[in-house]
Amino acid sequence: MERLPLEKKVLSENDRLAAGLRARFREHGILCFNLISSPGSGKTSLLERTLESLPQNERVGILTGDIQTDNDARRLARFGFPVKQITTGGTCHLDARMIERGLEGWRLLDIDLLLIENVGNLVCPASYDLGEAAKIVVLSVTEGEDKPLKYPSIFFKAKLLVLNKVDLLPYVPFDIDAAEENARCIHPGMDIVRVSCTTGDGIQPWLAWLEQRRHLQLAARAESVVPERARAALR
Amino acid sequence: MERLPLEKKVLSENDRLAAGLRARFREHGILCFNLISSPGSGKTSLLERTLESLPQNERVGILTGDIQTDNDARRLARFGFPVKQITTGGTCHLDARMIERGLEGWRLLDIDLLLIENVGNLVCPASYDLGEAAKIVVLSVTEGEDKPLKYPSIFFKAKLLVLNKVDLLPYVPFDIDAAEENARCIHPGMDIVRVSCTTGDGIQPWLAWLEQRRHLQLAARAESVVPERARAALR
Repeated sequence: MERLPLEKKVLSENDRLAAGLRARFREHGILCFNLISSPGSGKTSLLERTLESLPQNERVGILTGDIQTDNDARRLARFGFPVKQITTGGTCHLDARMIERGLEGWRLLDIDLLLIENVGNLVCPASYDLGEAAKIVVLSVTEGEDKPLKYPSIFFKAKLLVLNKVDLLPYVPFDIDAAEENARCIHPGMDIVRVSCTTGDGIQPWLAWLEQRRHLQLAARAESVVPERARAALR
Repeated sequence: MERLPLEKKVLSENDRLAAGLRARFREHGILCFNLISSPGSGKTSLLERTLESLPQNERVGILTGDIQTDNDARRLARFGFPVKQITTGGTCHLDARMIERGLEGWRLLDIDLLLIENVGNLVCPASYDLGEAAKIVVLSVTEGEDKPLKYPSIFFKAKLLVLNKVDLLPYVPFDIDAAEENARCIHPGMDIVRVSCTTGDGIQPWLAWLEQRRHLQLAARAESVVPERARAALR
Protein backbone atom coordinates (compact mmCIF):
# COMPACT_ATOMS: atom_id res chain seq x y z
CA MET A 1 0.00 0.00 0.00
CA GLU A 2 2.51 2.57 1.23
CA ARG A 3 4.87 1.60 -1.55
CA LEU A 4 2.75 2.97 -4.37
CA PRO A 5 3.21 6.72 -3.91
CA LEU A 6 7.01 6.36 -3.76
CA GLU A 7 7.04 4.01 -6.74
CA LYS A 8 5.08 6.64 -8.66
CA LYS A 9 7.56 9.31 -7.56
CA VAL A 10 10.54 7.19 -8.65
CA LEU A 11 8.90 6.51 -11.99
CA SER A 12 7.99 10.17 -12.57
CA GLU A 13 11.57 11.18 -11.73
CA ASN A 14 12.70 8.57 -14.23
CA ASP A 15 10.25 9.93 -16.81
CA ARG A 16 11.71 13.41 -16.34
CA LEU A 17 15.26 12.14 -16.94
CA ALA A 18 14.11 9.99 -19.87
CA ALA A 19 12.45 13.00 -21.49
CA GLY A 20 15.80 14.80 -21.21
CA LEU A 21 17.59 11.88 -22.83
CA ARG A 22 14.99 11.74 -25.62
CA ALA A 23 15.50 15.44 -26.31
CA ARG A 24 19.29 14.96 -26.45
CA PHE A 25 18.90 11.97 -28.78
CA ARG A 26 16.62 14.02 -31.05
CA GLU A 27 19.03 16.98 -31.02
CA HIS A 28 21.94 14.74 -32.05
CA GLY A 29 19.97 12.62 -34.50
CA ILE A 30 20.47 9.45 -32.47
CA LEU A 31 18.11 6.52 -32.97
CA CYS A 32 17.94 4.58 -29.71
CA PHE A 33 16.49 1.13 -29.01
CA ASN A 34 15.96 -0.59 -25.67
CA LEU A 35 16.22 -4.41 -25.89
CA ILE A 36 14.33 -6.32 -23.21
CA SER A 37 13.95 -10.06 -22.58
CA SER A 38 14.32 -12.83 -20.01
CA PRO A 39 17.87 -13.89 -19.17
CA GLY A 40 19.24 -16.04 -21.95
CA SER A 41 16.73 -15.20 -24.70
CA GLY A 42 19.55 -13.97 -26.90
CA LYS A 43 19.82 -10.18 -26.62
CA THR A 44 23.61 -10.28 -26.67
CA SER A 45 23.68 -12.80 -29.52
CA LEU A 46 21.33 -10.59 -31.53
CA LEU A 47 23.65 -7.64 -30.93
CA GLU A 48 26.64 -9.74 -31.99
CA ARG A 49 24.89 -10.67 -35.24
CA THR A 50 23.92 -7.03 -35.75
CA LEU A 51 27.38 -5.61 -35.13
CA GLU A 52 29.10 -8.16 -37.37
CA SER A 53 26.70 -7.20 -40.19
CA LEU A 54 27.18 -3.44 -39.97
CA PRO A 55 29.89 -1.64 -41.95
CA GLN A 56 32.79 -0.45 -39.78
CA ASN A 57 31.98 3.18 -40.57
CA GLU A 58 28.55 2.86 -38.97
CA ARG A 59 28.31 5.16 -35.97
CA VAL A 60 26.90 2.77 -33.39
CA GLY A 61 27.20 2.81 -29.60
CA ILE A 62 26.15 0.01 -27.24
CA LEU A 63 25.24 0.17 -23.55
CA THR A 64 24.74 -3.24 -22.01
CA GLY A 65 23.23 -3.80 -18.56
CA ASP A 66 23.75 -6.63 -16.11
CA ILE A 67 23.52 -7.13 -12.38
CA GLN A 68 27.06 -8.49 -12.25
CA THR A 69 29.96 -9.19 -14.68
CA ASP A 70 31.11 -7.37 -17.79
CA ASN A 71 30.82 -10.54 -19.89
CA ASP A 72 28.47 -8.96 -22.42
CA ALA A 73 30.57 -5.83 -22.97
CA ARG A 74 33.59 -8.07 -23.57
CA ARG A 75 31.63 -10.19 -26.05
CA LEU A 76 30.43 -7.10 -27.90
CA ALA A 77 33.65 -5.06 -27.83
CA ARG A 78 35.41 -7.32 -30.33
CA PHE A 79 33.40 -5.81 -33.21
CA GLY A 80 35.23 -2.50 -32.82
CA PHE A 81 32.28 -0.28 -31.91
CA PRO A 82 32.17 1.66 -28.62
CA VAL A 83 30.60 -0.49 -25.90
CA LYS A 84 30.03 0.23 -22.24
CA GLN A 85 28.88 -2.16 -19.50
CA ILE A 86 26.43 -0.86 -16.92
CA THR A 87 26.61 -3.08 -13.83
CA THR A 88 23.57 -2.44 -11.65
CA GLY A 89 24.89 -4.37 -8.63
CA GLY A 90 21.48 -5.85 -7.81
CA THR A 91 18.93 -3.58 -9.44
CA CYS A 92 16.63 -5.54 -11.72
CA HIS A 93 16.40 -3.00 -14.58
CA LEU A 94 18.21 -0.08 -16.19
CA ASP A 95 16.88 3.40 -15.48
CA ALA A 96 17.34 6.72 -17.22
CA ARG A 97 19.99 7.93 -14.76
CA MET A 98 22.14 4.88 -15.49
CA ILE A 99 21.88 5.68 -19.20
CA GLU A 100 22.86 9.33 -18.55
CA ARG A 101 25.94 8.13 -16.66
CA GLY A 102 26.68 5.48 -19.26
CA LEU A 103 26.80 8.14 -21.95
CA GLU A 104 29.31 10.28 -20.05
CA GLY A 105 32.53 10.63 -22.02
CA TRP A 106 30.89 9.80 -25.35
CA ARG A 107 30.45 12.53 -27.99
CA LEU A 108 26.80 12.15 -28.90
CA LEU A 109 27.45 13.81 -32.25
CA ASP A 110 29.51 10.74 -33.18
CA ILE A 111 26.62 8.32 -32.68
CA ASP A 112 23.71 7.61 -35.02
CA LEU A 113 22.43 4.39 -33.51
CA LEU A 114 22.40 3.63 -29.77
CA LEU A 115 21.55 0.07 -28.79
CA ILE A 116 20.73 -0.53 -25.11
CA GLU A 117 20.67 -4.10 -23.82
CA ASN A 118 18.64 -4.14 -20.62
CA VAL A 119 19.09 -6.45 -17.61
CA GLY A 120 17.59 -9.89 -18.33
CA ASN A 121 14.10 -9.55 -16.90
CA LEU A 122 10.76 -9.65 -18.70
CA VAL A 123 8.95 -7.69 -15.98
CA CYS A 124 10.60 -4.67 -14.34
CA PRO A 125 12.47 -3.07 -17.29
CA ALA A 126 9.11 -2.54 -19.03
CA SER A 127 8.28 0.21 -16.50
CA TYR A 128 11.40 2.32 -17.08
CA ASP A 129 11.59 4.70 -20.03
CA LEU A 130 15.20 5.18 -21.13
CA GLY A 131 14.45 7.84 -23.76
CA GLU A 132 14.47 5.19 -26.49
CA ALA A 133 12.67 5.52 -29.83
CA ALA A 134 11.28 2.02 -29.27
CA LYS A 135 11.42 -0.92 -26.92
CA ILE A 136 12.20 -4.26 -28.57
CA VAL A 137 11.24 -7.50 -26.81
CA VAL A 138 13.14 -10.71 -27.53
CA LEU A 139 11.43 -14.05 -26.83
CA SER A 140 13.09 -17.35 -27.59
CA VAL A 141 11.17 -20.39 -28.77
CA THR A 142 12.41 -22.41 -25.80
CA GLU A 143 10.33 -20.25 -23.44
CA GLY A 144 6.72 -21.18 -24.27
CA GLU A 145 4.17 -19.50 -26.52
CA ASP A 146 2.01 -18.20 -23.64
CA LYS A 147 4.62 -15.69 -22.43
CA PRO A 148 2.98 -12.64 -24.10
CA LEU A 149 -0.21 -13.40 -22.14
CA LYS A 150 1.65 -13.95 -18.88
CA TYR A 151 3.92 -10.90 -19.16
CA PRO A 152 1.65 -8.52 -21.10
CA SER A 153 3.23 -5.18 -20.15
CA ILE A 154 6.41 -5.50 -22.19
CA PHE A 155 4.58 -7.00 -25.17
CA PHE A 156 2.13 -4.12 -25.06
CA LYS A 157 4.91 -1.52 -24.93
CA ALA A 158 7.41 -2.98 -27.42
CA LYS A 159 7.23 -1.96 -31.08
CA LEU A 160 8.92 -5.15 -32.24
CA LEU A 161 8.96 -8.76 -31.11
CA VAL A 162 12.08 -10.71 -32.09
CA LEU A 163 11.25 -14.43 -31.93
CA ASN A 164 14.71 -15.92 -31.48
CA LYS A 165 16.22 -19.44 -31.63
CA VAL A 166 13.92 -20.62 -34.43
CA ASP A 167 16.62 -23.22 -35.26
CA LEU A 168 15.45 -25.05 -32.09
CA LEU A 169 11.80 -25.30 -33.23
CA PRO A 170 12.13 -28.97 -34.26
CA TYR A 171 13.22 -29.90 -30.73
CA VAL A 172 10.79 -27.95 -28.55
CA PRO A 173 7.01 -28.02 -28.12
CA PHE A 174 6.56 -24.39 -29.21
CA ASP A 175 3.71 -23.26 -31.46
CA ILE A 176 5.24 -20.19 -33.13
CA ASP A 177 1.98 -19.12 -34.80
CA ALA A 178 0.20 -19.25 -31.43
CA ALA A 179 3.06 -17.18 -29.94
CA GLU A 180 2.57 -14.50 -32.61
CA GLU A 181 -1.18 -14.60 -32.12
CA ASN A 182 -0.75 -14.17 -28.35
CA ALA A 183 1.62 -11.23 -28.90
CA ARG A 184 -0.85 -9.56 -31.29
CA CYS A 185 -3.71 -10.26 -28.89
CA ILE A 186 -1.84 -8.06 -26.36
CA HIS A 187 -0.52 -5.62 -28.98
CA PRO A 188 -2.40 -5.62 -32.30
CA GLY A 189 -0.21 -4.49 -35.16
CA MET A 190 3.03 -5.35 -33.35
CA ASP A 191 5.94 -5.93 -35.73
CA ILE A 192 7.44 -9.43 -35.49
CA VAL A 193 10.60 -10.97 -36.95
CA ARG A 194 11.65 -14.59 -36.57
CA VAL A 195 15.40 -15.08 -36.25
CA SER A 196 18.07 -17.56 -35.32
CA CYS A 197 21.23 -15.93 -34.05
CA THR A 198 22.88 -19.35 -34.33
CA THR A 199 22.23 -19.93 -38.06
CA GLY A 200 21.73 -16.29 -39.10
CA ASP A 201 18.21 -16.95 -40.41
CA GLY A 202 16.04 -13.86 -40.19
CA ILE A 203 18.91 -11.48 -39.47
CA GLN A 204 18.33 -9.63 -42.77
CA PRO A 205 14.66 -8.85 -41.97
CA TRP A 206 15.81 -7.67 -38.51
CA LEU A 207 18.42 -5.36 -40.05
CA ALA A 208 15.80 -4.16 -42.56
CA TRP A 209 13.48 -3.31 -39.66
CA LEU A 210 16.25 -1.22 -38.04
CA GLU A 211 16.92 0.49 -41.37
CA GLN A 212 13.25 1.24 -41.87
CA ARG A 213 13.07 2.83 -38.41
CA ARG A 214 16.05 4.97 -39.36
CA HIS A 215 14.28 6.20 -42.49
CA LEU A 216 11.14 6.94 -40.47
CA GLN A 217 13.25 8.96 -38.03
CA LEU A 218 14.97 10.88 -40.83
CA ALA A 219 11.62 11.61 -42.44
CA ALA A 220 10.22 12.83 -39.11
CA ARG A 221 13.29 15.02 -38.60
CA ALA A 222 13.02 16.47 -42.11
CA GLU A 223 9.40 17.32 -41.47
CA SER A 224 10.19 19.02 -38.21
CA VAL A 225 13.13 20.91 -39.74
CA VAL A 226 11.20 22.35 -42.71
CA PRO A 227 8.63 24.28 -40.65
CA GLU A 228 11.46 25.60 -38.48
CA ARG A 229 13.25 26.94 -41.56
CA ALA A 230 10.00 28.28 -42.88
CA ARG A 231 9.44 30.03 -39.58
CA ALA A 232 12.97 31.44 -39.69
CA ALA A 233 12.38 32.75 -43.22
CA LEU A 234 9.27 34.51 -42.04
CA ARG A 235 11.00 36.26 -39.15
CA MET B 1 18.52 6.99 -2.87
CA GLU B 2 15.21 7.76 -1.19
CA ARG B 3 13.90 4.36 -2.24
CA LEU B 4 16.17 2.35 0.01
CA PRO B 5 14.63 2.98 3.45
CA LEU B 6 11.13 2.07 2.20
CA GLU B 7 12.44 -1.00 0.37
CA LYS B 8 14.05 -2.08 3.64
CA LYS B 9 10.77 -1.48 5.46
CA VAL B 10 8.81 -3.51 2.88
CA LEU B 11 11.34 -6.33 3.12
CA SER B 12 11.36 -6.36 6.93
CA GLU B 13 7.54 -6.44 6.94
CA ASN B 14 7.80 -9.36 4.51
CA ASP B 15 10.34 -11.06 6.77
CA ARG B 16 7.94 -10.75 9.69
CA LEU B 17 5.11 -12.36 7.72
CA ALA B 18 7.46 -15.04 6.35
CA ALA B 19 8.57 -15.92 9.87
CA GLY B 20 4.90 -16.41 10.75
CA LEU B 21 4.41 -18.67 7.74
CA ARG B 22 7.54 -20.66 8.64
CA ALA B 23 6.23 -21.18 12.17
CA ARG B 24 2.87 -22.37 10.81
CA PHE B 25 4.59 -24.73 8.39
CA ARG B 26 6.68 -26.15 11.22
CA GLU B 27 3.64 -26.53 13.46
CA HIS B 28 1.77 -28.48 10.78
CA GLY B 29 4.75 -30.47 9.55
CA ILE B 30 4.69 -28.89 6.10
CA LEU B 31 7.79 -28.95 3.93
CA CYS B 32 7.69 -25.92 1.63
CA PHE B 33 9.82 -25.12 -1.43
CA ASN B 34 9.96 -21.91 -3.44
CA LEU B 35 10.79 -22.48 -7.12
CA ILE B 36 12.43 -19.55 -8.88
CA SER B 37 13.63 -19.13 -12.48
CA SER B 38 13.42 -16.99 -15.59
CA PRO B 39 10.18 -17.20 -17.57
CA GLY B 40 10.15 -20.41 -19.59
CA SER B 41 12.93 -22.31 -17.78
CA GLY B 42 10.48 -25.10 -16.96
CA LYS B 43 9.16 -24.60 -13.41
CA THR B 44 5.65 -25.68 -14.42
CA SER B 45 6.96 -28.63 -16.45
CA LEU B 46 9.04 -29.74 -13.48
CA LEU B 47 5.94 -29.57 -11.27
CA GLU B 48 3.97 -31.54 -13.86
CA ARG B 49 6.62 -34.27 -13.86
CA THR B 50 6.67 -34.23 -10.07
CA LEU B 51 2.91 -34.45 -9.61
CA GLU B 52 2.53 -37.23 -12.16
CA SER B 53 5.18 -39.24 -10.27
CA LEU B 54 3.65 -38.88 -6.80
CA PRO B 55 1.11 -41.37 -5.44
CA GLN B 56 -2.43 -39.94 -5.32
CA ASN B 57 -2.49 -40.21 -1.53
CA GLU B 58 0.45 -37.80 -1.23
CA ARG B 59 -0.68 -34.68 0.61
CA VAL B 60 0.69 -31.98 -1.71
CA GLY B 61 -0.50 -28.44 -2.30
CA ILE B 62 0.68 -26.11 -5.07
CA LEU B 63 0.60 -22.31 -5.23
CA THR B 64 1.61 -20.95 -8.61
CA GLY B 65 2.32 -17.27 -9.29
CA ASP B 66 2.02 -15.30 -12.48
CA ILE B 67 1.48 -11.70 -13.43
CA GLN B 68 -1.49 -12.62 -15.59
CA THR B 69 -3.42 -15.78 -16.63
CA ASP B 70 -4.26 -18.93 -14.70
CA ASN B 71 -2.64 -21.13 -17.38
CA ASP B 72 -0.26 -22.79 -14.92
CA ALA B 73 -2.93 -23.64 -12.35
CA ARG B 74 -5.00 -25.21 -15.11
CA ARG B 75 -2.00 -27.22 -16.33
CA LEU B 76 -1.26 -28.44 -12.81
CA ALA B 77 -4.84 -29.07 -11.64
CA ARG B 78 -5.27 -32.11 -13.86
CA PHE B 79 -3.10 -34.22 -11.53
CA GLY B 80 -5.80 -34.10 -8.85
CA PHE B 81 -3.85 -32.24 -6.13
CA PRO B 82 -5.07 -28.92 -4.73
CA VAL B 83 -3.67 -26.03 -6.80
CA LYS B 84 -4.22 -22.31 -6.52
CA GLN B 85 -3.14 -19.56 -8.92
CA ILE B 86 -1.81 -16.34 -7.46
CA THR B 87 -2.13 -13.60 -10.06
CA THR B 88 0.00 -10.63 -9.05
CA GLY B 89 -1.45 -8.24 -11.63
CA GLY B 90 1.93 -6.65 -12.36
CA THR B 91 4.10 -7.37 -9.34
CA CYS B 92 7.33 -9.08 -10.35
CA HIS B 93 7.53 -11.57 -7.44
CA LEU B 94 5.45 -13.38 -4.83
CA ASP B 95 5.59 -12.07 -1.28
CA ALA B 96 4.68 -13.62 2.06
CA ARG B 97 1.30 -11.87 2.24
CA MET B 98 0.29 -13.38 -1.11
CA ILE B 99 1.18 -16.82 0.26
CA GLU B 100 -0.86 -16.17 3.41
CA ARG B 101 -3.86 -15.27 1.28
CA GLY B 102 -3.22 -18.17 -1.09
CA LEU B 103 -3.40 -20.58 1.84
CA GLU B 104 -6.78 -19.28 3.02
CA GLY B 105 -9.40 -22.01 2.84
CA TRP B 106 -6.83 -24.83 2.92
CA ARG B 107 -6.54 -27.04 6.02
CA LEU B 108 -2.81 -26.96 6.68
CA LEU B 109 -3.06 -30.23 8.60
CA ASP B 110 -3.95 -31.90 5.28
CA ILE B 111 -0.71 -30.82 3.57
CA ASP B 112 2.75 -32.36 3.93
CA LEU B 113 4.47 -30.80 0.93
CA LEU B 114 3.81 -27.26 -0.33
CA LEU B 115 5.32 -26.34 -3.69
CA ILE B 116 5.37 -22.66 -4.61
CA GLU B 117 6.07 -21.65 -8.19
CA ASN B 118 7.20 -18.05 -8.20
CA VAL B 119 6.69 -15.45 -10.96
CA GLY B 120 9.17 -16.02 -13.81
CA ASN B 121 11.99 -13.66 -12.85
CA LEU B 122 15.55 -14.51 -11.89
CA VAL B 123 16.07 -11.28 -9.95
CA CYS B 124 13.35 -9.91 -7.68
CA PRO B 125 11.87 -13.13 -6.17
CA ALA B 126 15.28 -13.85 -4.61
CA SER B 127 14.71 -10.98 -2.13
CA TYR B 128 11.37 -12.22 -0.76
CA ASP B 129 11.27 -14.93 1.89
CA LEU B 130 8.03 -16.92 1.65
CA GLY B 131 8.66 -19.03 4.75
CA GLU B 132 9.99 -21.86 2.60
CA ALA B 133 12.39 -24.55 3.83
CA ALA B 134 14.49 -23.91 0.73
CA LYS B 135 14.59 -21.93 -2.47
CA ILE B 136 15.16 -23.95 -5.63
CA VAL B 137 16.50 -22.26 -8.76
CA VAL B 138 15.76 -23.70 -12.20
CA LEU B 139 18.08 -22.83 -15.10
CA SER B 140 17.58 -24.26 -18.55
CA VAL B 141 20.49 -25.11 -20.83
CA THR B 142 19.17 -22.74 -23.51
CA GLU B 143 19.96 -19.75 -21.28
CA GLY B 144 23.76 -19.68 -21.18
CA GLU B 145 26.24 -21.00 -18.64
CA ASP B 146 27.20 -17.57 -17.29
CA LYS B 147 23.81 -16.91 -15.67
CA PRO B 148 24.93 -17.84 -12.11
CA LEU B 149 27.63 -15.15 -12.36
CA LYS B 150 25.27 -12.56 -13.81
CA TYR B 151 22.40 -13.21 -11.36
CA PRO B 152 24.33 -14.29 -8.26
CA SER B 153 21.75 -13.54 -5.58
CA ILE B 154 19.34 -16.38 -6.35
CA PHE B 155 22.18 -18.86 -6.92
CA PHE B 156 23.67 -17.87 -3.58
CA LYS B 157 20.34 -18.31 -1.77
CA ALA B 158 19.00 -21.47 -3.42
CA LYS B 159 19.78 -24.86 -1.86
CA LEU B 160 19.34 -26.67 -5.17
CA LEU B 161 19.99 -25.87 -8.81
CA VAL B 162 17.85 -27.81 -11.29
CA LEU B 163 19.57 -27.71 -14.68
CA ASN B 164 16.65 -28.32 -17.01
CA LYS B 165 16.22 -29.15 -20.72
CA VAL B 166 19.35 -31.30 -20.91
CA ASP B 167 17.73 -33.01 -23.93
CA LEU B 168 18.54 -29.81 -25.86
CA LEU B 169 22.28 -29.96 -25.06
CA PRO B 170 23.21 -31.31 -28.52
CA TYR B 171 21.60 -28.28 -30.18
CA VAL B 172 22.82 -25.38 -28.04
CA PRO B 173 26.27 -23.95 -27.26
CA PHE B 174 25.96 -24.59 -23.52
CA ASP B 175 28.85 -25.90 -21.43
CA ILE B 176 27.02 -27.69 -18.61
CA ASP B 177 30.16 -28.33 -16.57
CA ALA B 178 31.03 -24.62 -16.74
CA ALA B 179 27.47 -23.81 -15.65
CA GLU B 180 27.85 -26.04 -12.58
CA GLU B 181 31.27 -24.57 -11.86
CA ASN B 182 29.84 -21.04 -12.07
CA ALA B 183 26.98 -21.97 -9.74
CA ARG B 184 29.41 -23.48 -7.21
CA CYS B 185 31.67 -20.46 -7.54
CA ILE B 186 28.75 -18.37 -6.22
CA HIS B 187 27.51 -21.05 -3.82
CA PRO B 188 30.04 -23.74 -2.90
CA GLY B 189 28.37 -27.00 -1.95
CA MET B 190 25.15 -26.19 -3.80
CA ASP B 191 23.14 -29.28 -4.72
CA ILE B 192 22.63 -29.73 -8.46
CA VAL B 193 20.46 -32.09 -10.49
CA ARG B 194 20.36 -32.29 -14.27
CA VAL B 195 16.90 -33.01 -15.68
CA SER B 196 14.86 -33.04 -18.84
CA CYS B 197 11.17 -32.53 -18.21
CA THR B 198 10.63 -33.52 -21.85
CA THR B 199 12.27 -36.96 -21.72
CA GLY B 200 12.00 -37.55 -17.96
CA ASP B 201 15.78 -37.92 -17.56
CA GLY B 202 16.94 -36.89 -14.11
CA ILE B 203 13.44 -36.78 -12.62
CA GLN B 204 14.28 -39.64 -10.24
CA PRO B 205 17.29 -37.84 -8.70
CA TRP B 206 15.09 -34.74 -8.35
CA LEU B 207 12.39 -36.74 -6.54
CA ALA B 208 15.10 -38.35 -4.40
CA TRP B 209 16.34 -34.87 -3.43
CA LEU B 210 12.81 -33.90 -2.33
CA GLU B 211 12.52 -37.16 -0.38
CA GLN B 212 15.86 -36.58 1.30
CA ARG B 213 14.76 -33.11 2.40
CA ARG B 214 11.64 -34.66 3.86
CA HIS B 215 13.72 -37.10 5.90
CA LEU B 216 15.94 -34.27 7.08
CA GLN B 217 12.87 -32.32 8.17
CA LEU B 218 11.39 -35.32 9.99
CA ALA B 219 14.71 -35.92 11.74
CA ALA B 220 14.88 -32.26 12.78
CA ARG B 221 11.29 -32.42 14.07
CA ALA B 222 11.96 -35.61 16.03
CA GLU B 223 14.97 -33.94 17.63
CA SER B 224 12.97 -30.86 18.59
CA VAL B 225 10.03 -32.96 19.86
CA VAL B 226 12.09 -35.12 22.23
CA PRO B 227 13.36 -32.24 24.40
CA GLU B 228 9.82 -30.85 24.54
CA ARG B 229 8.50 -34.17 25.86
CA ALA B 230 11.42 -34.37 28.23
CA ARG B 231 10.60 -30.88 29.47
CA ALA B 232 6.94 -31.90 29.88
CA ALA B 233 7.97 -34.99 31.88
CA LEU B 234 10.05 -32.79 34.18
CA ARG B 235 7.16 -30.44 34.94
